Amino acid sequence: MRIVLLLFSILISIESYAQSVVDKDYESLQIKAIYDEVLTNGQCYKWLEYLCEFAGPRLSGSPSAAAAVEYTRQILDTLGLDSVWLQPCVVPHWVRGEKEQARIVNSKMIGTQELRVVALGNSIGTGPNGVTAEVVEVKSIEELQNMSDADVKGKIVFYNRPMDVTLPNTFHAYGRAVDQRGAGPVEAAKKGAVAAIVRSMTTGLDDVPHTGATRVDPDGHNIPSVAVSTNDAEILSRVLRNETVSVHIRTTCKMLAPVTSYNVIGQIKGSERPDEIILIGGHLDAWDLGQGAHDDGAGCVQSMEVLRALKATDYKPRRTIRCVLFMNEENGLAGATTYARISNERGEFHLAAIESDAGGFIPRGFTCSAIQGLQEQYLKSIASWWDVMAGNDLYLQPGGSGADINALKSQGGILFGLRPDTQRYFDYHHTADDRIEMVNARELKMGAAAMTSLVYMLDKFIERVN
Amino acid sequence: MRIVLLLFSILISIESYAQSVVDKDYESLQIKAIYDEVLTNGQCYKWLEYLCEFAGPRLSGSPSAAAAVEYTRQILDTLGLDSVWLQPCVVPHWVRGEKEQARIVNSKMIGTQELRVVALGNSIGTGPNGVTAEVVEVKSIEELQNMSDADVKGKIVFYNRPMDVTLPNTFHAYGRAVDQRGAGPVEAAKKGAVAAIVRSMTTGLDDVPHTGATRVDPDGHNIPSVAVSTNDAEILSRVLRNETVSVHIRTTCKMLAPVTSYNVIGQIKGSERPDEIILIGGHLDAWDLGQGAHDDGAGCVQSMEVLRALKATDYKPRRTIRCVLFMNEENGLAGATTYARISNERGEFHLAAIESDAGGFIPRGFTCSAIQGLQEQYLKSIASWWDVMAGNDLYLQPGGSGADINALKSQGGILFGLRPDTQRYFDYHHTADDRIEMVNARELKMGAAAMTSLVYMLDKFIERVN
Repeated sequence: MRIVLLLFSILISIESYAQSVVDKDYESLQIKAIYDEVLTNGQCYKWLEYLCEFAGPRLSGSPSAAAAVEYTRQILDTLGLDSVWLQPCVVPHWVRGEKEQARIVNSKMIGTQELRVVALGNSIGTGPNGVTAEVVEVKSIEELQNMSDADVKGKIVFYNRPMDVTLPNTFHAYGRAVDQRGAGPVEAAKKGAVAAIVRSMTTGLDDVPHTGATRVDPDGHNIPSVAVSTNDAEILSRVLRNETVSVHIRTTCKMLAPVTSYNVIGQIKGSERPDEIILIGGHLDAWDLGQGAHDDGAGCVQSMEVLRALKATDYKPRRTIRCVLFMNEENGLAGATTYARISNERGEFHLAAIESDAGGFIPRGFTCSAIQGLQEQYLKSIASWWDVMAGNDLYLQPGGSGADINALKSQGGILFGLRPDTQRYFDYHHTADDRIEMVNARELKMGAAAMTSLVYMLDKFIERVN
Repeated sequence: MRIVLLLFSILISIESYAQSVVDKDYESLQIKAIYDEVLTNGQCYKWLEYLCEFAGPRLSGSPSAAAAVEYTRQILDTLGLDSVWLQPCVVPHWVRGEKEQARIVNSKMIGTQELRVVALGNSIGTGPNGVTAEVVEVKSIEELQNMSDADVKGKIVFYNRPMDVTLPNTFHAYGRAVDQRGAGPVEAAKKGAVAAIVRSMTTGLDDVPHTGATRVDPDGHNIPSVAVSTNDAEILSRVLRNETVSVHIRTTCKMLAPVTSYNVIGQIKGSERPDEIILIGGHLDAWDLGQGAHDDGAGCVQSMEVLRALKATDYKPRRTIRCVLFMNEENGLAGATTYARISNERGEFHLAAIESDAGGFIPRGFTCSAIQGLQEQYLKSIASWWDVMAGNDLYLQPGGSGADINALKSQGGILFGLRPDTQRYFDYHHTADDRIEMVNARELKMGAAAMTSLVYMLDKFIERVN
């Protein structure tokens, strides 16, 4: 009870302090004006429709990515911002090649059986003749590493640990399974495997394979790697429980020479402290199988909408509000790395950065983080007015932000990740189904309104902590 | 500050009381077991697939409704319950007839223009020759009533007040607009109108008309009534701002003789207090345009899943847990009325009832209500353990429950409505798009798990209040 009372007295003091600087009734009205603007006149869904349907798949280095850069730059140009520019960055240029093939070739149980697969991003191809080899199934990298090299050499390693469907937050399940895709193939190569098959990263059982990046080993332990649909992973696993089988895989994907691409940036210059930047962003590149509607067209158009909504509600920010559409989050982070390097070289200070890269679903809240020693102080300040945000049903929790902004943490500001509901994300993530039809316009706008509200409150009420 | 401290001391006393009866760590584990069961082995989505694709549209009195009764009864029969039965009820039998037609016939601006319309449920038809009349647009019933009868007589009244998109909860927007559909046509008839066109109840702008029930006037003020898609409502309104136009409407819908149908009921008998009933339910009937996937196939299969999950987790309820799939919620409430009448005649007591009838989307919480004088006491008891539910991100707020269970409130128990996120509901509601493809399996299961958890906690910890 003592602890509870102590906590309560802290809350009271925060509350009293807060009332002296934040007029919550007034701020709630301003936030209502932002929501009204975005829900009534929001352009983000229309922009996303265009981005998806006309620019289409936009993997780094592709013509579609170049089209997406130009389209979003032009849209930012129409918003009456203080400046819009392209920031060059050199990106990897991986291409998928012909449609991938895979089949079980000699099962006594089921004969020849096609498997629905897609090459993993950055993977080398098998070449036109493909590879055919016996399959060994493992549930984890650790299990593989406990096997003798002789049991792996010359074989295809099949990683088949499912995402844990009992975790309510599907990102937690993803986090516990995705090492199979990211690190699994290189580890298999080190033990002499000739190819890798990875169970698709999804909570569902369906026929759609999910791509995604796999690690490239600078020492050359790289093998052709594919993701298999969860239904076909189940079939393959069932066969392997009863007999030894081989699988034939054919992929012609390859890494071409690097290409110059761009981060797309637009900003409203701060009226009082232009050197303090509040960034909102997402990543413009997307996997080539679908349209990158949720991942991460949504985050891009929401970030653009923040600037539009601030202008439309006649808000003159004290700090510089900068929208950054990062290139190459999916298979290299070249845009993020370039942006952070140049920002540091220029001595910029990002007071806050907000990334939306978890789909255009109904927002549930934000996670946030700052470097050790600062986080608590930022959180105390934000807690004094978070109830204004919570009026729109948004939580605040310590946690990660986003891959594109993470490097900015060292500047000493605070980073946020928009957290939409997670139930549907891995139905579409990195697949042919990540299309505009799967995005709900109101959900997308609610996310943009939440981001705009947070930018507004941060601009008005947060101070740099040292 | 005084008020805050007072509130705090109340919270402390609730907390202390609660700790004496609810071992929250233990209960959290039980709730986790329920979620694990539903997310891993849940059958509700498969049942819904079958209900949607094989039984199909199931408006009261239709052969599909009879098929749905039989299908769900058979599923309940497989669950190892203590009893499963059909409860007869006499339902209205309205049929849509041929595909509806409507068009602007004499616009100088745009010539002849087809309008996408559907007849409103319970409406009379125009007959095969249709009606053609000048259109008068109003934004509200009040505006209509302020007009002279001469300005309305012989005309088609067009109700065109949009749902308010700025309300974050779309049900609030629906509640403020739906009087146009429910009461608008009869009010127009009373002033001599020959037909009514109602703007579809949706937050979106699209081409899909939304049906729904309109009131039948026992004194005969009934006119042919249709809903028009929001896009076409905008077109019609734009034309009417510039010129006087007539619209031709042809509908052949009609009310046939009433039919005997059924509520489908299954229950697990309570081990300690079998005479105290905890009900979970939804409604089995659905509009004929789509598949009734969200409205309210979702609520039916979730309610069935509650019983399955309780059995699968080996929980032996103290109270009787009863699943009721009500017939005829959409256009008459005959099932609900019959159920409540018979329950009262038998002197039954529903300690609690939970309805799911707001779509199979991600659950956000529950609203609850009891008769005056009891609500506060129930809420105090529930507040003592709600943090166990809140661990799954579920709120509890005073508010309505559901049309099918509302009449049970007079028995003195407490009623709950499952509250899923509302953003997408009115994209599909009462349209051809309310199909299984629009339901996400995990979201549906999360709702079923939330309901099962609430049933479990109520069964263990709530006591009748007098």
